[in-house]
Amino acid sequence: MTDIPPLAVLFVASSFLRWYHVSMRQSELFTRTRREAPKDETSKNAQFLIRGGFVEKVMAGVYALLPLGLRAHQKIEAIIRDEMNALGGQEILMPSLHPKENWEKTGRWGTYDSLFRFVSYYSKIEYALGPTHEEIVVPLVQKQNLSYKDFPFAVYQIQTKFRDEKRAKSGLLRGREFSMKDLYSFHASDEDLDTYYEKAKASYRKIFQSVGLGHVTYPTFASGGSFSKYSHEFQTLTMAGEDSIYICDKCDVAVNKEIIADTKNSCPDCGNGSLREEKAVEVGNIFKLKTKYSAPFGLRFKDEKGEEKNVIMGCYGIGLTRLLGTIAEVHHDDKGLVWPESVAPYRAHLIRLGDDEKVAKFADEVYKEFLEKNIEVLYDDREASAGEKLADADLLGMPYRVVVSAKTLRQAQGGHLEKKKVELKKRGEENVVLLDAKELLKQIS
Amino acid sequence: MTDIPPLAVLFVASSFLRWYHVSMRQSELFTRTRREAPKDETSKNAQFLIRGGFVEKVMAGVYALLPLGLRAHQKIEAIIRDEMNALGGQEILMPSLHPKENWEKTGRWGTYDSLFRFVSYYSKIEYALGPTHEEIVVPLVQKQNLSYKDFPFAVYQIQTKFRDEKRAKSGLLRGREFSMKDLYSFHASDEDLDTYYEKAKASYRKIFQSVGLGHVTYPTFASGGSFSKYSHEFQTLTMAGEDSIYICDKCDVAVNKEIIADTKNSCPDCGNGSLREEKAVEVGNIFKLKTKYSAPFGLRFKDEKGEEKNVIMGCYGIGLTRLLGTIAEVHHDDKGLVWPESVAPYRAHLIRLGDDEKVAKFADEVYKEFLEKNIEVLYDDREASAGEKLADADLLGMPYRVVVSAKTLRQAQGGHLEKKKVELKKRGEENVVLLDAKELLKQIS
Repeated sequence: MTDIPPLAVLFVASSFLRWYHVSMRQSELFTRTRREAPKDETSKNAQFLIRGGFVEKVMAGVYALLPLGLRAHQKIEAIIRDEMNALGGQEILMPSLHPKENWEKTGRWGTYDSLFRFVSYYSKIEYALGPTHEEIVVPLVQKQNLSYKDFPFAVYQIQTKFRDEKRAKSGLLRGREFSMKDLYSFHASDEDLDTYYEKAKASYRKIFQSVGLGHVTYPTFASGGSFSKYSHEFQTLTMAGEDSIYICDKCDVAVNKEIIADTKNSCPDCGNGSLREEKAVEVGNIFKLKTKYSAPFGLRFKDEKGEEKNVIMGCYGIGLTRLLGTIAEVHHDDKGLVWPESVAPYRAHLIRLGDDEKVAKFADEVYKEFLEKNIEVLYDDREASAGEKLADADLLGMPYRVVVSAKTLRQAQGGHLEKKKVELKKRGEENVVLLDAKELLKQIS
Repeated sequence: MTDIPPLAVLFVASSFLRWYHVSMRQSELFTRTRREAPKDETSKNAQFLIRGGFVEKVMAGVYALLPLGLRAHQKIEAIIRDEMNALGGQEILMPSLHPKENWEKTGRWGTYDSLFRFVSYYSKIEYALGPTHEEIVVPLVQKQNLSYKDFPFAVYQIQTKFRDEKRAKSGLLRGREFSMKDLYSFHASDEDLDTYYEKAKASYRKIFQSVGLGHVTYPTFASGGSFSKYSHEFQTLTMAGEDSIYICDKCDVAVNKEIIADTKNSCPDCGNGSLREEKAVEVGNIFKLKTKYSAPFGLRFKDEKGEEKNVIMGCYGIGLTRLLGTIAEVHHDDKGLVWPESVAPYRAHLIRLGDDEKVAKFADEVYKEFLEKNIEVLYDDREASAGEKLADADLLGMPYRVVVSAKTLRQAQGGHLEKKKVELKKRGEENVVLLDAKELLKQIS
């Protein structure tokens, strides 16, 4: 009982999973890039994501994900889902409309910071719009009438959350509507929670590594509330962040400024007293709730001896929308975004320069090669100037830029596709190489 | 320009798509089946879906999807997504929080039936919770500054919607929070919309066929509003439905009762005057909006001659939560659900009867075979009585029930797996056959 049994970790890649197109012709994409950043956005993440047509602002703190932005989001989602499944999490989907009585039961109806609360005009029912789901998941689990043999287990969802922020700011970093993954674990003992908590911590490190933030993300000691000494946040270094953290370079952990006095300005792991302060954004947190939410709902179980006990809980959150914004904040240069390969909307950006018929034909051939090899590619087949196309490629930031032009064609030694050359440049690097199609596909795939 | 160019229809099945487990041990599933239907549910869909642990009611008109229900929902989602991509739709994700001014612009702030409207306590902003997204998608498209060459195109999303229903009822058929797919198409001419509309109609028929409702779903003439003579609903026959439709058996179409007087009690397609009345539920609708929403926002484009015109629009909706409820309503018997193969949470339900060690070992072997062949399977490895397990198999309604017991083992001719027998029964059929593992896998996959 010290461990959540992993569900079968075999996966099926059957036909109902085919929800990504491997490719897109840019001439068909309905979004447009913009030269100028919108005047009402001061954060780099919003500026670049809007200029690239990844997202669109609907109003303060509320964004729409456009095709390229949704793809990046879906990739983040898939990375997180894989890890949650590996942690034994069972996926569910809870609603956003929450009954008032549940929030009254936990005492948070009137006290929860930024809770959207409203009375329906038609039905006169009082609702909260879910910013977190302890108030829903606990009664839901309670209805299952569980015995001690059923623990531990964990459920999670990837879902839209709402917060009535006094000031929405920093683009996607602090919105009023955003997507989150929240996992809740249920245990028969504190020790079992402790074991699972450490597993979840390791899983979180893996996730932030996978999305390209591992090198700047620190497990950070934060307040544990009334039930635990500490909780852990995962804080990513960026000047756009609202938090201040103190990093221990010996342990690669940090302490949130809010509790730095409690730790006597030193690292809780090794006692190191020379910590450096940095600005950061909280991209995830894990928390030992213990009986904080099970008790008010009376979520109890009978142990082996027939004794009734409160269920022990943990909760584990990651903000996906915020993660998307943080990746943009960390991975950009003056010209635009520099997507990590794992979350890039497309792996390659194939660019046809000029309208020369031979160039167009060759570019189409290269595009076809990508499709046949199942390499995700955005194909810039638009009628536009070379300057505009190359600037867009930098702005959109796909990892591999592949240019086909009259110049690259002149390098061809003969009429065969294999002999014709393309130009390959990795985003974020200066080095440009001339390759034939075969070498290209080998390099990219 | 008469056609939306299909995006590349090649798909990639790469690692980031592995979001379904191929299998689940029922002993690990945290949901429980119930013998009794909840007293506050009168509809069959809610009764069976709750008894089976597919969904849980949170409050009137608001449900949570539990692991088995979410799987069915995700399969419906994948079927719809495939068809929307084939229709050239570009997937996006719009928010649920809508600004009041957008709804004022279309005149629907005070008139839209069942619009959730509220004032934020903290930020004092007035919001609507989106029941549909014309008010968001039109300004979003407008920001892209499109020219006549950019038409036609279509965008869609699969997203949570909210309706402040005076009375939530019929379980998942009429909720206050539910998931929908909404696609919006944009055209330079009425003729182009007409062409696309017919394609969408064909695509809808395919979707309802794919989810197992084709035989009872009718394209149904409904009111076209102020801009068109007719719109089309897709109505599925069920006594749980709120609508009445008049079916023309010659054309396999129907007329909504609301406009039957306008069609002079006859079929608009063939003039047939002997129509039969049936109860039905609206599972989808397609509508020629024309300039109804583009005009108030000033969504215009310049045509070839430089003349400014309003963009022509169509909208196309399918309620996924409602579809899940409708499938349960159409596909059940007295004992429980009878899932169509295409949307069943798992293809097979492997049931181990008795705790005999040899039986358990053999059942584990069969389970492993399923995993190796990538056949989705729910494995009932619980310690429970045969009666309980078989009743649960009927209630849960997976298409193929596979029983391993001391009895089936006695049929074995030797020690080899190939010789050992299992019992196969299709849900909804009475016929039971004894097979060895090899034959079984051939029959099921």
